[in-house]
Amino acid sequence: MLTLEDARRVIAAAETKATEIGQPMNVAVVDTGGNLVAHVRMDNAWIGSINISINKAFTARAFDTSTQELGENSQPGQQFYGIQDSNHGRIMIFAGGIPLRRDGQVVGAVGVSGGSGAQDQSVADAGAAAF
Amino acid sequence: MLTLEDARRVIAAAETKATEIGQPMNVAVVDTGGNLVAHVRMDNAWIGSINISINKAFTARAFDTSTQELGENSQPGQQFYGIQDSNHGRIMIFAGGIPLRRDGQVVGAVGVSGGSGAQDQSVADAGAAAF
Amino acid sequence: MLTLEDARRVIAAAETKATEIGQPMNVAVVDTGGNLVAHVRMDNAWIGSINISINKAFTARAFDTSTQELGENSQPGQQFYGIQDSNHGRIMIFAGGIPLRRDGQVVGAVGVSGGSGAQDQSVADAGAAAF
Amino acid sequence: MLTLEDARRVIAAAETKATEIGQPMNVAVVDTGGNLVAHVRMDNAWIGSINISINKAFTARAFDTSTQELGENSQPGQQFYGIQDSNHGRIMIFAGGIPLRRDGQVVGAVGVSGGSGAQDQSVADAGAAAF
Repeated sequence: MLTLEDARRVIAAAETKATEIGQPMNVAVVDTGGNLVAHVRMDNAWIGSINISINKAFTARAFDTSTQELGENSQPGQQFYGIQDSNHGRIMIFAGGIPLRRDGQVVGAVGVSGGSGAQDQSVADAGAAAF
Repeated sequence: MLTLEDARRVIAAAETKATEIGQPMNVAVVDTGGNLVAHVRMDNAWIGSINISINKAFTARAFDTSTQELGENSQPGQQFYGIQDSNHGRIMIFAGGIPLRRDGQVVGAVGVSGGSGAQDQSVADAGAAAF
Repeated sequence: MLTLEDARRVIAAAETKATEIGQPMNVAVVDTGGNLVAHVRMDNAWIGSINISINKAFTARAFDTSTQELGENSQPGQQFYGIQDSNHGRIMIFAGGIPLRRDGQVVGAVGVSGGSGAQDQSVADAGAAAF
Repeated sequence: MLTLEDARRVIAAAETKATEIGQPMNVAVVDTGGNLVAHVRMDNAWIGSINISINKAFTARAFDTSTQELGENSQPGQQFYGIQDSNHGRIMIFAGGIPLRRDGQVVGAVGVSGGSGAQDQSVADAGAAAF
């Protein structure tokens, strides 16, 4: 399973990357059940991104996919258009949420929010790589 | 009316199809009132799809139409665009929800979620055919 | 972990008990993450109890305790008074939700709703005993 | 202001206390705006307490009072009875939320959930003392 120690390692790596690119971020990690394990908001990061980071992590685990990929499939005319209205407002369909895998199995996810889509994604990638 | 026994027959057929195509699914059945009769989440099916399967079944009965057809009419510029904001987040506008008819009358619906739109639809079709 | 097969065994035992006492019930089972695995509403069971059975199961897993015991601690003047306002309306504080344990560890829960508190509890007990 | 570094110091002290009393906890810290700065769920802590720890921290800052004291004033017949129905489900009225003061000014709060009221309070006290 995913422990608090795992979550902290992921968050630390994400923070390092966020500092490196000069964009303070919210970073959240959820476990296998999609439940929050840890969250940090770096100093000066957006308060609107608290909820988004947690929801991106939830979404990435809820569908075992990155929120970026889900977003591509949820545009008007695409197969999952409208999915963001499910799950009581917890579904985020833009970049920054990535599943965390162990032995090929998704056991949690990381969600990042606080900058552009590309920035969120690169910070989430750095976090996931440390898992 | 639609009984629990009916719902189980529909779910069993859907599960058989899901197993056949190798994609674990959430399957839900609602009755004439749009209220849940039964739900199952197959092992390893997405947890984000619990809510979606139930909502697809509700939606299909709520408008006596498949969610796929409703989705076509709910794209930007179409006549029902925005319908997903009604009913407190219970409206799903992509494939996988199908009304269940008896003697030409809609008496319930099945909702399936856990794969691509085409997979969800094929599993819902299999469930509906068993009704 | 708790499988769909496990959930069905629990539900079957609960249904048998409900039939025996002549009170149709809603029965729900959640897994380790508190996420729904299966739900059934027996014919003629209350539709208001769909949500309650699912929430009782969630609550029993969320706090690793029976909802009956939690209810005793949540009365006015008690240590958890007000807990039912947390978790976005998912906390139920009356009898019918029971944790499911394997090797001493809580791995899910069963929730029953559709009769008196004593009836709900006895049906949930029967379900849990089959786990 | 309250920084992420401050929040981490508070959380570390709370975790030490929780480990000492043998009860895994959720610990959350909010800033002057009542917005989440950091949250951790210790391994095996209740998942229902994620939301409660965050809400206790919010509540303690929202009214610049401990949730224990607010709870005493929110019992049936007391002056704030009903306050838990405000703020969209974010108000918790039992022990575990404590304001964090700097130079006599409240600049944030810590919220703890995962055990009995007395345990939550003692862990929150330990966290606040480290601020």
